[in-house]
Amino acid sequence: MAHKVAILGASGYTGAELIRLISQHPNIEIAALGAERKAGMQMADVFPHLRHLSLPTLCTIDEIDFSQIDLCFCALPHKTSQQVIANLPGDLKIVDLSADFRLRDPADYEKWYGNPHAAVAQQQEAVYGLTEFYREEITTARLVAGTGCNAATGQFALRPLIAAGVVDLDDIILDMKCAVSGAGRALKENLLHAELSEGYHAYAIGSTHRHLGEFDQEFSLLAGRPVRVQFTPHLLPVNRGILATTYVKGDAEEIYRTFEHAYGDEPFVELLPLGEAPSTHHVRGSNFVHIGVTADRISGRAIVIVALDNLTKGSSGQALQNANLMLGEDETAGLMMAPLFP
Amino acid sequence: MAHKVAILGASGYTGAELIRLISQHPNIEIAALGAERKAGMQMADVFPHLRHLSLPTLCTIDEIDFSQIDLCFCALPHKTSQQVIANLPGDLKIVDLSADFRLRDPADYEKWYGNPHAAVAQQQEAVYGLTEFYREEITTARLVAGTGCNAATGQFALRPLIAAGVVDLDDIILDMKCAVSGAGRALKENLLHAELSEGYHAYAIGSTHRHLGEFDQEFSLLAGRPVRVQFTPHLLPVNRGILATTYVKGDAEEIYRTFEHAYGDEPFVELLPLGEAPSTHHVRGSNFVHIGVTADRISGRAIVIVALDNLTKGSSGQALQNANLMLGEDETAGLMMAPLFP
Amino acid sequence: MAHKVAILGASGYTGAELIRLISQHPNIEIAALGAERKAGMQMADVFPHLRHLSLPTLCTIDEIDFSQIDLCFCALPHKTSQQVIANLPGDLKIVDLSADFRLRDPADYEKWYGNPHAAVAQQQEAVYGLTEFYREEITTARLVAGTGCNAATGQFALRPLIAAGVVDLDDIILDMKCAVSGAGRALKENLLHAELSEGYHAYAIGSTHRHLGEFDQEFSLLAGRPVRVQFTPHLLPVNRGILATTYVKGDAEEIYRTFEHAYGDEPFVELLPLGEAPSTHHVRGSNFVHIGVTADRISGRAIVIVALDNLTKGSSGQALQNANLMLGEDETAGLMMAPLFP
Amino acid sequence: MAHKVAILGASGYTGAELIRLISQHPNIEIAALGAERKAGMQMADVFPHLRHLSLPTLCTIDEIDFSQIDLCFCALPHKTSQQVIANLPGDLKIVDLSADFRLRDPADYEKWYGNPHAAVAQQQEAVYGLTEFYREEITTARLVAGTGCNAATGQFALRPLIAAGVVDLDDIILDMKCAVSGAGRALKENLLHAELSEGYHAYAIGSTHRHLGEFDQEFSLLAGRPVRVQFTPHLLPVNRGILATTYVKGDAEEIYRTFEHAYGDEPFVELLPLGEAPSTHHVRGSNFVHIGVTADRISGRAIVIVALDNLTKGSSGQALQNANLMLGEDETAGLMMAPLFP
Repeated sequence: MAHKVAILGASGYTGAELIRLISQHPNIEIAALGAERKAGMQMADVFPHLRHLSLPTLCTIDEIDFSQIDLCFCALPHKTSQQVIANLPGDLKIVDLSADFRLRDPADYEKWYGNPHAAVAQQQEAVYGLTEFYREEITTARLVAGTGCNAATGQFALRPLIAAGVVDLDDIILDMKCAVSGAGRALKENLLHAELSEGYHAYAIGSTHRHLGEFDQEFSLLAGRPVRVQFTPHLLPVNRGILATTYVKGDAEEIYRTFEHAYGDEPFVELLPLGEAPSTHHVRGSNFVHIGVTADRISGRAIVIVALDNLTKGSSGQALQNANLMLGEDETAGLMMAPLFP
Repeated sequence: MAHKVAILGASGYTGAELIRLISQHPNIEIAALGAERKAGMQMADVFPHLRHLSLPTLCTIDEIDFSQIDLCFCALPHKTSQQVIANLPGDLKIVDLSADFRLRDPADYEKWYGNPHAAVAQQQEAVYGLTEFYREEITTARLVAGTGCNAATGQFALRPLIAAGVVDLDDIILDMKCAVSGAGRALKENLLHAELSEGYHAYAIGSTHRHLGEFDQEFSLLAGRPVRVQFTPHLLPVNRGILATTYVKGDAEEIYRTFEHAYGDEPFVELLPLGEAPSTHHVRGSNFVHIGVTADRISGRAIVIVALDNLTKGSSGQALQNANLMLGEDETAGLMMAPLFP
Repeated sequence: MAHKVAILGASGYTGAELIRLISQHPNIEIAALGAERKAGMQMADVFPHLRHLSLPTLCTIDEIDFSQIDLCFCALPHKTSQQVIANLPGDLKIVDLSADFRLRDPADYEKWYGNPHAAVAQQQEAVYGLTEFYREEITTARLVAGTGCNAATGQFALRPLIAAGVVDLDDIILDMKCAVSGAGRALKENLLHAELSEGYHAYAIGSTHRHLGEFDQEFSLLAGRPVRVQFTPHLLPVNRGILATTYVKGDAEEIYRTFEHAYGDEPFVELLPLGEAPSTHHVRGSNFVHIGVTADRISGRAIVIVALDNLTKGSSGQALQNANLMLGEDETAGLMMAPLFP
Repeated sequence: MAHKVAILGASGYTGAELIRLISQHPNIEIAALGAERKAGMQMADVFPHLRHLSLPTLCTIDEIDFSQIDLCFCALPHKTSQQVIANLPGDLKIVDLSADFRLRDPADYEKWYGNPHAAVAQQQEAVYGLTEFYREEITTARLVAGTGCNAATGQFALRPLIAAGVVDLDDIILDMKCAVSGAGRALKENLLHAELSEGYHAYAIGSTHRHLGEFDQEFSLLAGRPVRVQFTPHLLPVNRGILATTYVKGDAEEIYRTFEHAYGDEPFVELLPLGEAPSTHHVRGSNFVHIGVTADRISGRAIVIVALDNLTKGSSGQALQNANLMLGEDETAGLMMAPLFP
């Protein structure tokens, strides 16, 4: 019998992406779609590309009978998510896609997000949702915190290297190129087509982006001592994709072998031949991660480049991968579609 | 047991699109990939977005043992296709994606394509592959000719109206907006990013586009007398999608009812509420067709707009839909993935 | 001595475009920049691409001393413009870029815009600003109403043909493809990059777009009897450009000769060789209009295609062209820069 | 009386960009346009956006009477340029836009370009064309070598810092994002719209890009000892613009003051307020350079970001700026047009 899921925040991009993916899942049924401001509307009017699906009418969270729900995806805005989750049934399985449960330390949370956490108990309980590295904990978790899309990308580049001690921990630079859907469907002037297309720029310069909280937490935990990376995101006139160009001090061949060992059995991680560079073109709309390693002309330095789709592997695909584990399904169910190219 | 298929022309966009779709098909196995000039290469090197799949090495057509093949997709260039198909086993099921077998009359073929047909026997045998209108013939066909992508789009707008006699046959205008992947992977100056992006223009003006051969053949057959439409294609800086804005003289409500009747049971055709306009955004990467009907302010005139993805419903998705019928599979197998948006 | 101008609405796209053009004008000085909500800001903070210019600080309209101003450009939103202009000095030369003074008949204005006109006296006084056809009246006008960008494009295609009586007045279709900057800098979901790029769609279907008011007024006046065209605009994922594909019943060669006669001496209108199609790529950022004429395969029908830049020739370039006439400057001053390609 | 110039290689993008700029120059006349393969054609057929200009018919180099030419722009492909220039009159003023005369040392040239130099005498004579740093030498030069577009961008970020000794010379990373027009009008599969749009990737990874030869030469000369930077270019789906994100070890405020000193009087260089980031949107189509400096969260590290238009300031605009100096014209003549936004 199919698992019944609810999606809260169904009128945003990550909500729509969840529906797209689940529509091909053999064993999950969408039982409720929450969207406070658009309650009463049909999904076909909010996202016409889902017009062919038979989906529940959008409703408010209050209208959902969670006793009939096996797992709830929360694709709500930051801050809203913690307030909602604090009031959901305590035994409901939840995959949260917001930033609210990614940082374990309440002080870290407040430092990066500017407000005290409103659901500290759940924060302590949450498991960090980077599947490839927290697979066992996720399988038995009640509440899983989806990672930031940039944070996921950077960790695919660096976690195995930090864990293996093959790069200089004090000289890591992440130069990241991000597609615009990562900013969501918000009405902001800088997200208009006329403002954004035909050009590009950096933002959150000086290592001030909130996803650094995740890097600091995870890399320091792995290394057993504080690790601080430099991270500059850039906004590109493309809808999907993140490319992380990572500058490290270490031996490229040793790095490559470390990745072969770490990712050899992973169904969604593709390690390119040494010296090749991945492209966001080749992962678009899919749950795959492409990784390339190249030695620099300067001895002892290497470049690691990671490409993934921010809405799929960076968010909703990762969320479904985690839900599969939590529901006892095959981890790859509903997630093996090939990228869309061209 | 899975059906074994071969794909000839695997290094072009329609070949790659077939592989993308079949990778999600429950009951088809890709047994051979033909690509003359790239024989010996791996698909991952030709199309890195397919890197995660286990696929046969590219080979020449001569190397394929067709006795082991249940159905062959020919995604070869025009003219090449007829020469190759003339020499394939006479009992091999074939879905051809080229223009070579779309026109039934050898004289029409020569008029639009400029050369005598090299496989007249097969031309006579071929069934026109617009599934929704030739379903029965396709089910029992040996050789099916995939339609032109523009030709498919225009026929979804007009076939039911011509058949029902609800529009003036002598005053039909198809203004079509086409994405660039329809032109294939050829190295032409006008297909360069720097030439194409940030602008748009008409081409094949004056109703000189070859797909008019298909319109003339099919519309005249339906009407029982010659029908000649005006057709102006435009090239847009987008990779996928065709939007046909069709100007007809007829009653919008009668047109709408005609479509309800024609498409009510079709799994891939979505009729929008009267007065709404479809968008290529909402069909991208999918096999769906969205259709909208609107009355003009001038009484007795209507606008019919059709959106589909030229590489999927306009080409490779249609081909797989036809192959499903020919192989006794569910017509929708491997084709129900939702569009990719944003 | 340079003419002093004020620009009201300097924080929108047409305001910025005026500044871009005037920055290269030999004889016009920008003396005041009005922008109510951004008063007190520097232009470099509102439009960083103008950072290199020495410009007045943005101010409210009340702060401007109009006695020092030779001509005022009003690049304000519709409705706001008529209220502001009603209160400006009665002898101030004004070029208005809004829709407020384009229609001469108050009833027509109310029909298309939904509210009674708030400055009827000025409405009666205003001269319609399509320079090539109202050159004499503009030269001596006090108040000139800039045309709609779509309205300008369609009139370049049709005015000479209607005036010469060489096309069927009852069967004209304008299928228009419009860039997104025409919608301005407003925060609307459908103008977001993620919503708009990679696809396209029609809007204002059924001939309901407000620019039809201008077509009806001007074409009927020219013909001496009511003329109603069909007009379907489409929104494209491009920032600048309008392409009008015009379907008319008439002889292509006669149409071509009519254009040669009408536009032979025009500095900004380029008539392409018969049978060639213009592209918006080739007019981008310039004040030029490219026009192509082609005969259809159906005898007695022709296609006229017009390309221009909606922000330049369709709006701010046209405004400066008119201001040049009103100020006694060379009509082309500041406007001869070549298009930007690629 | 106007200076007469010839442009060799007029059918490429940098040739067309020169014509666009010179069309607004008060004192330069285009007397000859060389284009071997397109000799005999009109410019309007090669670049329709220049249709409004009266230009010489394209011709072969042999057909040009160089005794009537005051200065020759060579916008020819690499290798071709050195062969052509070796045979031009020895007293003809030349601005070369190719890579052929950028490196002073024949061994360096051969290392990066793979062949011995065919015009060593002229190579020795050439002045490096980065105007802001070689102004005096350029003014009296006979032959000026235009810089690489990436090379220009990186040098605007780093030259003042290396000269002033305010950054660690052994730890400099240039992560560069490049628009596609930099690759020219060549027919390559990876430059097709369908391959390039909607994604991005690095290329020439591992610091193997030829423009490193310029960085090595210039930075080492400035520092008085060998300097080797890391440099990773990325190809973006945009037509114009380069953004260099430069990671240096040094004090951001000292870096900022160094730039204020270096660029305070430069007409084309705009230093943004400390902590702001430039965008390629805001320099498009112009000769301006925007520079931003930001301190990283890690003490002692800074990010310097430079934006310019690769075809203008990175190539043809720079060439005209140099030609102005060589001809005794105002350095900014024909180059003060504002960027095109949106």
